[in-house]
Amino acid sequence: MGENVKVAVVGASGYTGQELVRLLLQHPRIEIACVTSRSEAGRLVTDVFPRFKGSPKVNDLPFIAPDVEKMKQLGVEAAFLALPHGVAASFAEPLIDAGIRVIDLSADFRLRSPEIYEEFYGAPHPAPHLLEEAVYGLPEVYGEQIEKARLIASPGCYPTSVLLPLLPILKEGLINPETICVSSMSSASGAGKKTDPSLLFCEVNESVRAYGAPKHRHLSEIEQELSLASQQEVKISFVPHLLPTNAGIATTIFADLKTDPQHVSALIAAAYQEAYENSSFVRVLGEGVFGDTKNVARTNFVDIGWVIDDRTNRLILSSAEDNLGKGAGSQGVQSFNVIYGFPETEGLLHF
Amino acid sequence: MGENVKVAVVGASGYTGQELVRLLLQHPRIEIACVTSRSEAGRLVTDVFPRFKGSPKVNDLPFIAPDVEKMKQLGVEAAFLALPHGVAASFAEPLIDAGIRVIDLSADFRLRSPEIYEEFYGAPHPAPHLLEEAVYGLPEVYGEQIEKARLIASPGCYPTSVLLPLLPILKEGLINPETICVSSMSSASGAGKKTDPSLLFCEVNESVRAYGAPKHRHLSEIEQELSLASQQEVKISFVPHLLPTNAGIATTIFADLKTDPQHVSALIAAAYQEAYENSSFVRVLGEGVFGDTKNVARTNFVDIGWVIDDRTNRLILSSAEDNLGKGAGSQGVQSFNVIYGFPETEGLLHF
Amino acid sequence: MGENVKVAVVGASGYTGQELVRLLLQHPRIEIACVTSRSEAGRLVTDVFPRFKGSPKVNDLPFIAPDVEKMKQLGVEAAFLALPHGVAASFAEPLIDAGIRVIDLSADFRLRSPEIYEEFYGAPHPAPHLLEEAVYGLPEVYGEQIEKARLIASPGCYPTSVLLPLLPILKEGLINPETICVSSMSSASGAGKKTDPSLLFCEVNESVRAYGAPKHRHLSEIEQELSLASQQEVKISFVPHLLPTNAGIATTIFADLKTDPQHVSALIAAAYQEAYENSSFVRVLGEGVFGDTKNVARTNFVDIGWVIDDRTNRLILSSAEDNLGKGAGSQGVQSFNVIYGFPETEGLLHF
Amino acid sequence: MGENVKVAVVGASGYTGQELVRLLLQHPRIEIACVTSRSEAGRLVTDVFPRFKGSPKVNDLPFIAPDVEKMKQLGVEAAFLALPHGVAASFAEPLIDAGIRVIDLSADFRLRSPEIYEEFYGAPHPAPHLLEEAVYGLPEVYGEQIEKARLIASPGCYPTSVLLPLLPILKEGLINPETICVSSMSSASGAGKKTDPSLLFCEVNESVRAYGAPKHRHLSEIEQELSLASQQEVKISFVPHLLPTNAGIATTIFADLKTDPQHVSALIAAAYQEAYENSSFVRVLGEGVFGDTKNVARTNFVDIGWVIDDRTNRLILSSAEDNLGKGAGSQGVQSFNVIYGFPETEGLLHF
Repeated sequence: MGENVKVAVVGASGYTGQELVRLLLQHPRIEIACVTSRSEAGRLVTDVFPRFKGSPKVNDLPFIAPDVEKMKQLGVEAAFLALPHGVAASFAEPLIDAGIRVIDLSADFRLRSPEIYEEFYGAPHPAPHLLEEAVYGLPEVYGEQIEKARLIASPGCYPTSVLLPLLPILKEGLINPETICVSSMSSASGAGKKTDPSLLFCEVNESVRAYGAPKHRHLSEIEQELSLASQQEVKISFVPHLLPTNAGIATTIFADLKTDPQHVSALIAAAYQEAYENSSFVRVLGEGVFGDTKNVARTNFVDIGWVIDDRTNRLILSSAEDNLGKGAGSQGVQSFNVIYGFPETEGLLHF
Repeated sequence: MGENVKVAVVGASGYTGQELVRLLLQHPRIEIACVTSRSEAGRLVTDVFPRFKGSPKVNDLPFIAPDVEKMKQLGVEAAFLALPHGVAASFAEPLIDAGIRVIDLSADFRLRSPEIYEEFYGAPHPAPHLLEEAVYGLPEVYGEQIEKARLIASPGCYPTSVLLPLLPILKEGLINPETICVSSMSSASGAGKKTDPSLLFCEVNESVRAYGAPKHRHLSEIEQELSLASQQEVKISFVPHLLPTNAGIATTIFADLKTDPQHVSALIAAAYQEAYENSSFVRVLGEGVFGDTKNVARTNFVDIGWVIDDRTNRLILSSAEDNLGKGAGSQGVQSFNVIYGFPETEGLLHF
Repeated sequence: MGENVKVAVVGASGYTGQELVRLLLQHPRIEIACVTSRSEAGRLVTDVFPRFKGSPKVNDLPFIAPDVEKMKQLGVEAAFLALPHGVAASFAEPLIDAGIRVIDLSADFRLRSPEIYEEFYGAPHPAPHLLEEAVYGLPEVYGEQIEKARLIASPGCYPTSVLLPLLPILKEGLINPETICVSSMSSASGAGKKTDPSLLFCEVNESVRAYGAPKHRHLSEIEQELSLASQQEVKISFVPHLLPTNAGIATTIFADLKTDPQHVSALIAAAYQEAYENSSFVRVLGEGVFGDTKNVARTNFVDIGWVIDDRTNRLILSSAEDNLGKGAGSQGVQSFNVIYGFPETEGLLHF
Repeated sequence: MGENVKVAVVGASGYTGQELVRLLLQHPRIEIACVTSRSEAGRLVTDVFPRFKGSPKVNDLPFIAPDVEKMKQLGVEAAFLALPHGVAASFAEPLIDAGIRVIDLSADFRLRSPEIYEEFYGAPHPAPHLLEEAVYGLPEVYGEQIEKARLIASPGCYPTSVLLPLLPILKEGLINPETICVSSMSSASGAGKKTDPSLLFCEVNESVRAYGAPKHRHLSEIEQELSLASQQEVKISFVPHLLPTNAGIATTIFADLKTDPQHVSALIAAAYQEAYENSSFVRVLGEGVFGDTKNVARTNFVDIGWVIDDRTNRLILSSAEDNLGKGAGSQGVQSFNVIYGFPETEGLLHF
């Protein structure tokens, strides 16, 4: 057994950062060298997040302002970025130049095309030369590339919940990619720790509402990966909804079957078997079983089920994940494990 | 101003019955002659529902066992049935024979075809001769028939949330009926007051899950009405979800546009204008606005919005209603108002 | 039947103001002449509160900036103030000078002593000369004074939930006033519509926490009224808690009995009978029954129950109310009804 | 490092059993030899609890019917009992006779006096001879006795939340034990996985209610331990409340100070310092800080804070714990760690 890895969490005051720190507290091979936050610099991590009191790993650790030099001095080998879109890119470059591996949980490096980035994010990409080397951090798909990556673009929460059920089916050509319609239902933590009146308890509790359709930013990376898998340009309809829960995304996907519905179920099972039989975190529930967010909250699991709607010749896919877990923090840690040669499940087998 | 109408609520111990009684307490033209429940017979309504204490209308009113003779003696003119599917039909017949109008909130008389009833409900229809005269109690569509009806089959909660946004669009031929996919998200009260472990607080809270797909019972009446509106047989994909809220259904509908997305928005607005300009309870929110269940909870309103997904040439419709309100109890009261010539909004303009 | 009364709602963009407008929409004797909000001036009320769409009373009504002259021109006879503490006082004076009755939902005029105001609110009282004429708007106690009042200081949410169960017991001398300990549990709407990170959905959901002890501002008016009732200076311990609900306060009160526990129950029942037999909104549940916030949400009722703890010779009182209803908006409307000679229940008998 | 310990979980289908299994899945020194449930016997643990899918520890493990012989054959060394009160005692005896250590999460062995058991539980104690040897499993108080115990009576959820803040204060004589009043607020999981209509989602959500006062069963063990600590008979007033959360109890305690409020704070801090400085799981938050259930959910921590109410010369204590964690399952595991000589935090340092 080698040494533990010293890591930095950059931008740890939001929900993603908080969940990431929580996961790192329980990772046996990680030492938290520093935790940064401009707004909280100087305060103890345990004062900002009283939940973490009692952990030897952060007991006297203060937030510091982000500073690459300082990180180098502290021996940081890898940095997790839990920063807003656009800000992450400006940190990634100097970190990589300083020889620190970057696992970026923002959207900054997820798109291969700077044009599509600009179309969806409304501004030119801040570091287009890094797009080429960034690896989309979905270990179930890009495991080999992740092993050697210096820069991981960890997927978004909605994309993960859409891609993991869809990719094997698309690769096998079982559905018509032009007919994909997605309804995703996310917990409020997905909206971030923003003091937006619409995110106050009384506005979210006893409320369900669609938002962001038809062109949510996450659509760009979803379509990029679906297109790669089906070897044709894919455009889909995607409607996210905000729900009164703390954790989890449930996604329901409709698509026209390209094959006879009577025989397709075995093909679907086989496609998932091939794609995920060695995966520790994709739990294929089988036909007729739907994902439930309460079964994946605070874990790195994604649950996948399906039904065949033979009356309309459609396939209906269902997935459930934790938007801050497999949809953000723990997925980043999974990539970290792959990079450093730890077992994929190291520090992540929570229930 | 004529006399008030004496009504019975038959089967009032569940969530639909409770909400119905609540609405009737606040209806100025209704006298509650009796409230029946086999399981609660003998207990005061205010003991079973402490919320109703202080209402002069039920202060000393006990639940009684259901009995048509007794209702006649009490002068009951109209009966609301809040009974399980199958049970309602057995009550409807003697009530109608006794000259009592029936507003049935169950699914028993919603389908015109006894064959489809048997297909979806798994048993022969208990009173097929009444199917012909039953009127589907969606006042926005069947207002004239409701005026003269002896037997109202009040629509289901999911069907109302799907039909009101879709019918005007289908009638105008703006979408391809073969491409309709529906994702509905319902509060837990829609599952009824059943002592099913999966409905316990800790099982529903912090949970989101699909269920009942691909052939939920409500699909039968949805497809019946969609087929009538589009003058062709329509089959759709429909996935309901259970959410941790007390009140409300949000529905998101995907369908391929049959027209150029650039000009369709005005046509959609016109279709809704024509369908609902005289409707008191359909609130057309317009393009780019989505329904939110918290705005319709405990009301008879349904909110409808839409977006054009021009990237995929699809229309995305959004609706929100209260599953126990416009989806059950208050919609029944709206039919009652139509039958008795009261203003449609009588006793229903709650906010 | 006389004319309807024209009213203004001043400061209507918060939760109290919104609930007040909601109640006025359903009050048959009130015309909403104007609704003011500095931050929302110019926007339609139904755009800020989509829930109110479809109400003839506010259909085209915009928010306006607060302006006494304008209110006079509009014929306003009474103004409800739903403003922050301190701000309300500055509006009350010119309104009263202009002959407009004021029902103030803030704390500005609840205390008789400017010294105690300064002690608890940290600043000198802005209009001490009005304290003398202000009437504490608890109709169950001050009904006669309210009839003639120009300025109503409507009680706070916690105070109402504490005073209504305690006052009759104290007046009868059944408990030792020096031993009163109060635990109150409030919904998040009581904290107001503030963009405070600690009020975000994810911070309140799945959380329970005490706050504000030992000297919450509401303590001052509680002790004032308890002292008046017991004809001696009373100081109590009071701990409020924030809960993940939208509506309601449950209060549990401990106090040492001054009498033999075996005979006290009849005395308690008699005390409540005498105090509340003519009250429309206090529902005395009796011994062994506890209030439940879900039975009073969105109503003007307060439910009161008690148990005798004969092992410790203590009385335990329980109350439940809606903090925005009997604890704020509807209680103000109840005072309005008393002032204008309407039945106490006019527009308030909701279930 | 020795061998892992083989354990049985007896009665694992309820919320306590489920949480216990969840904890054991993550305990590095425990092997789950069997999991019993009469009602679920024959089903896979992962079918009953889909959340546990993917854990190597229970992947193919079925529930079995409880059977001491079978447990012996499987090499079980310790058994956790997550059974209803009364049932646990009948299992404990044969297990102990078979040389299996018992950690009983029920109330069966918590009281030293069979008379008080009968008074509070309404039936004679089923195994009074075992009461003498049973050790009350509060490791912060009975650590030494736990080391050698064959039978652990793990404390109840409310008792733990009341005792840990109160015991050090009582031992130091800082408060008058006759004046203790306790208001506890529990999540719905504390009520168990019972198909009681009052525990359905729609009955608990948006509800807060007291129950069980003045003589909740847990009061007996609370008073037993408070009496031992203060060396006099202590009786207290205790009111539990049911809240709409999945996890956690917050407790607020009032008591008259016996000392000058101006100097007492240092004495309180010292009392806690002495009691808990070596405790891994009691986090003393300090003066003016209140516990929040969201900071302890799914952990074995209990958070304690206090304020001095110098206006009334009272001490107000606040605690927060997870009712299924430190209040049940993880506390049992903590005792297990003590018995087997593992670090107290083994498998329990979750955040």
